[in-house]
Amino acid sequence: MKLARFTIPGESEVRSGIVDNSEIHEFTGDLFTSRILTGKTFSLQNVGLKAPIIPRHIIGIGRNFVGEGEPKPAIPDMPILFFKPLSTVVGPEDAVLLPLGTDEIKFESELAVIIGKEARNIAPEQVDDVIFGFTVTNDFGAFNYFHPEGHWTIGKSFDTFCPLGPVIVTDFDYHSARIQATVNGTVKQDALMERIITPIDSMISYISRFMTLMPGDVILTGTPAGADLVRDGDIVDCYIEGIGHLQNPVRAQKLSSNL
Amino acid sequence: MKLARFTIPGESEVRSGIVDNSEIHEFTGDLFTSRILTGKTFSLQNVGLKAPIIPRHIIGIGRNFVGEGEPKPAIPDMPILFFKPLSTVVGPEDAVLLPLGTDEIKFESELAVIIGKEARNIAPEQVDDVIFGFTVTNDFGAFNYFHPEGHWTIGKSFDTFCPLGPVIVTDFDYHSARIQATVNGTVKQDALMERIITPIDSMISYISRFMTLMPGDVILTGTPAGADLVRDGDIVDCYIEGIGHLQNPVRAQKLSSNL
Repeated sequence: MKLARFTIPGESEVRSGIVDNSEIHEFTGDLFTSRILTGKTFSLQNVGLKAPIIPRHIIGIGRNFVGEGEPKPAIPDMPILFFKPLSTVVGPEDAVLLPLGTDEIKFESELAVIIGKEARNIAPEQVDDVIFGFTVTNDFGAFNYFHPEGHWTIGKSFDTFCPLGPVIVTDFDYHSARIQATVNGTVKQDALMERIITPIDSMISYISRFMTLMPGDVILTGTPAGADLVRDGDIVDCYIEGIGHLQNPVRAQKLSSNL
Repeated sequence: MKLARFTIPGESEVRSGIVDNSEIHEFTGDLFTSRILTGKTFSLQNVGLKAPIIPRHIIGIGRNFVGEGEPKPAIPDMPILFFKPLSTVVGPEDAVLLPLGTDEIKFESELAVIIGKEARNIAPEQVDDVIFGFTVTNDFGAFNYFHPEGHWTIGKSFDTFCPLGPVIVTDFDYHSARIQATVNGTVKQDALMERIITPIDSMISYISRFMTLMPGDVILTGTPAGADLVRDGDIVDCYIEGIGHLQNPVRAQKLSSNL
């Protein structure tokens, strides 16, 4: 099943739907437990796709892939983990805004896992039971805002730094996922999931040992080799076959305050 | 005004209320925008207080106080910031669970600021306009789970590691706040807000420059000198005059899985 959030032309209301080839069937109710079809169907080409979920938490992992042909290190005792705030979430085609005062911004194409059940202290073998689905993410980072003592919090947390989409796929074999990315049409990333260091089941098991995961928690599973700097005007396209394209333009930020 | 969340004996439903001396007046609706009194009043001594807010985000700052008599360094260009997940939140009297495999757990008594309005790129002078209120927090950390490369994410994120309470106070002069803590009755922390390095207005202004703050975001403003290790059976009491006592027992964790 493929699930999306969308708007229809001239409306700001965000609706939810099940994508079926070229159509989207609207539903209401809870994404995880009570999807109720409204009977309304729209043509996919006439709707605007939004981020397919408003996460509860976004949890990322650092340095989790080795390049093609490189030897794979042991799974580390303690992964590098970080949170991204909800203010980072944007959808397909939304602009990613470059923070002021730095030109060291990197994109990172990744598979995102959406948790569907409460999970506390679970074993790797139990992880598939708590996964609801998968989407594509582009985990942006501003390296000049990584703290010299190692904290990535600020650099990973700028508004718009977590595009998600285009859809959530619930029946997806992540073990053989191929993660790709282009910038302005030039291939930058193209790697199989087998290049991962801490596999998805171990990663989610590890996280569940310190924090109780809940439906809506989203885990960014790391990016393969090839992530690169972006500049004003670039268009980044992250692609995972079976899920789809997540394309976002990159724009220089104009300083604004809401007060 | 003092605001709380509470349960009444024999019920699990969490209610909201305005505390007025020894009574609590129940309200429904949104904490920030539409509190509607139900007309029901309870005696404060007959209710169980819960964390006074379910935060949207919890944002903490590291190493933000100097000890009594120590020279105060300049405000750093980039503070040490970290997120704590919502699964860390517990209320007054709730047990804080010690993670397995470490006895290096520290408590930290702190003033927590609750944001009440959207805030993006605001100046320090505008910060008071976006603050809704204040509560007490105890920012626990497991130092053995701080990543050797500097990431505090895991160590700050264990379930139960963010007691909040007992109430939110909306009219509180934080500039002269005095932050105290005892463990088993022995004074461990006792300091005035003037010992802070990055003041609250600068800190919130800084955060608003990378992430749009929203109502319900909670900012932990740092702990004064004296934070110390805790052990199974300890009782930590964090106190800020004008807000109240936040007391929590510390317990060794029993390993459990929910699957």
